[in-house]
Amino acid sequence: MPGLAQAILGMPDDVQRRAIAKSITLLESTRPNHRVLAQRLLNDLLPHAGGAFRLGVTGVPGVGKSTFIEALGLYLIKLGHRVAVLTVDPSSSVSGGSILGDKTRMEKLSVHASAFIRPSPTGGTLGGVAARTREAMLVCEAAGYDIVVVETVGVGQSETAVAAMTDMFVLMQLPNAGDELQAIKKGVMELADLVLINKADLDPAAAMRAQAQIVSSLRLLGHSGSPELARHDDRRWQPQVLQTSALRVQGMDAFWAAVLRFRDLQSAAGALTQRRRDQALAWMWERIESGLRQSFREDPLVAAAMQTTRQAVADGTMVGSLAAQNLLDLFARAHGRQTEHSPNVNSGSAG
Amino acid sequence: MPGLAQAILGMPDDVQRRAIAKSITLLESTRPNHRVLAQRLLNDLLPHAGGAFRLGVTGVPGVGKSTFIEALGLYLIKLGHRVAVLTVDPSSSVSGGSILGDKTRMEKLSVHASAFIRPSPTGGTLGGVAARTREAMLVCEAAGYDIVVVETVGVGQSETAVAAMTDMFVLMQLPNAGDELQAIKKGVMELADLVLINKADLDPAAAMRAQAQIVSSLRLLGHSGSPELARHDDRRWQPQVLQTSALRVQGMDAFWAAVLRFRDLQSAAGALTQRRRDQALAWMWERIESGLRQSFREDPLVAAAMQTTRQAVADGTMVGSLAAQNLLDLFARAHGRQTEHSPNVNSGSAG
Repeated sequence: MPGLAQAILGMPDDVQRRAIAKSITLLESTRPNHRVLAQRLLNDLLPHAGGAFRLGVTGVPGVGKSTFIEALGLYLIKLGHRVAVLTVDPSSSVSGGSILGDKTRMEKLSVHASAFIRPSPTGGTLGGVAARTREAMLVCEAAGYDIVVVETVGVGQSETAVAAMTDMFVLMQLPNAGDELQAIKKGVMELADLVLINKADLDPAAAMRAQAQIVSSLRLLGHSGSPELARHDDRRWQPQVLQTSALRVQGMDAFWAAVLRFRDLQSAAGALTQRRRDQALAWMWERIESGLRQSFREDPLVAAAMQTTRQAVADGTMVGSLAAQNLLDLFARAHGRQTEHSPNVNSGSAG
Repeated sequence: MPGLAQAILGMPDDVQRRAIAKSITLLESTRPNHRVLAQRLLNDLLPHAGGAFRLGVTGVPGVGKSTFIEALGLYLIKLGHRVAVLTVDPSSSVSGGSILGDKTRMEKLSVHASAFIRPSPTGGTLGGVAARTREAMLVCEAAGYDIVVVETVGVGQSETAVAAMTDMFVLMQLPNAGDELQAIKKGVMELADLVLINKADLDPAAAMRAQAQIVSSLRLLGHSGSPELARHDDRRWQPQVLQTSALRVQGMDAFWAAVLRFRDLQSAAGALTQRRRDQALAWMWERIESGLRQSFREDPLVAAAMQTTRQAVADGTMVGSLAAQNLLDLFARAHGRQTEHSPNVNSGSAG
């Protein structure tokens, strides 16, 4: 695909835009010959990728993610940036995709020459969806987009996946933060580098209370959300809590200033480079483990024994570690390997 | 080992106690012939295990875990229970074990005829340490201990491992909860079924503030820590926040009443049975994945390519998913298998 790569690496124009879209479609294809072409394309683009700041955004439905991302995108374009928006939605294979939704949601941004918006890849596991989005991000970077926003709809473990592919992770909240309806999924608060209270204009008093409460909770979780405390250690970023109203385009300056402070602080400390190295290696290992699990599950001997073994473990009639060892032995034997650790002991052979 | 099994399943006496200790030592041995004996023993004991309530306890050093567990153990023995205390400490292989520490820490409990205290297995990965502790738990249950307390020292991911092997997970906190010195590790607060503010007598006002703050944070994290809100849905347990002073043996009644409420509520809903089934299957899969990773890393072809590949991925000159596929292909080829997904594409072959 030298043609595609050249078009992507060329000047921003309609040819480039179509080449990006075509490349991402190629990356998302599962056909073996497409995978070969896709991997060649990635190899061509990789030396030109990595130049963007990668911003992850999550929040419950209704918090205003699209409105915020559109306002932010238009704000950044005015500052001279080129902005790509990608989405990770592992449910999109079920719901039939969100292409129309995305276009409708970000009307002004989607038609702008300096913006590129792509909905979530559809189909497959979260791991697969995340892998395709990571690769799409590299294409956008090679095409010269210097800000990539990755939005997650918060299904399954998608927040973790997006936090693991971005430089900074933003959690959006509504002013009624104490409300149980706004339950934050386990661990998501702790992934956040910045918490944004959106729709603050609707109830300024509630927004202030929410801000105080989240600062307090972040502190309890081992972070410090307060700028005062953050100053105590200026070599390390402390998660911030800010207010905004995306609909009224309020709070963009303060938000972007915080992002730049984060970027500068993390760059100076080498933390950004380290985060990307760690992310790349973690991603490789995640893909390896996913592949190993698949080979294991698809092994005929393992598959034949799995149902009975699972049932015995669930019912408490077989110890989990022994069940695991028996299945691993089957997997190894099928391929002429031997595990040295455990001579196979069946339940029946016990004295 | 029919002798060991018989001694364990017999009446509680010194013979049984020695047999338990010997069995656990056998379970912790890595010698292949010991593993065979250990697995036979587990098979003999398994039908008699599972009868205890399994209580996990974590908290930062200095929070008073040992004092609390000793006070709780003596309290429960007075109620007619038999109490086993196990520890998960993946650092114990480095520090040389904590046998002396444990004995010294729980002086009164350790000499009691109705208590059995065992320090953490030493050596190996957290996964291995956790697997040995799970197996030791089964031995204690078969021996008729009806309360098993599993303490974790909070190193690495040990809290997650302990929460994954217990019916209820308790996080201990100091009254100065807002203090940054008392940073809670990511995700630990969210594992807690109950938060216990210990040493509450030292500063009752601070303990009240801490309680309110933790209730508020649990609510923000999607739980409800307040008894008022808990009543809204009495079919589902809502994490509670209680105060105690283990040193003065205060708050034991309220704590144990909460544990019994938890047990009754969860049992009635079938949640306790489901939790154990889920835990057993998750444990089996964790052991399988650990075994697969080990085979993969020890594969000569994979090992030979690993260093260069890791470096390329970390440096950003190779895409993680491609690196993973290349290594998986090496692993599969070494054993005559083929992965159908991806024809191997090397970086060098790109056009």
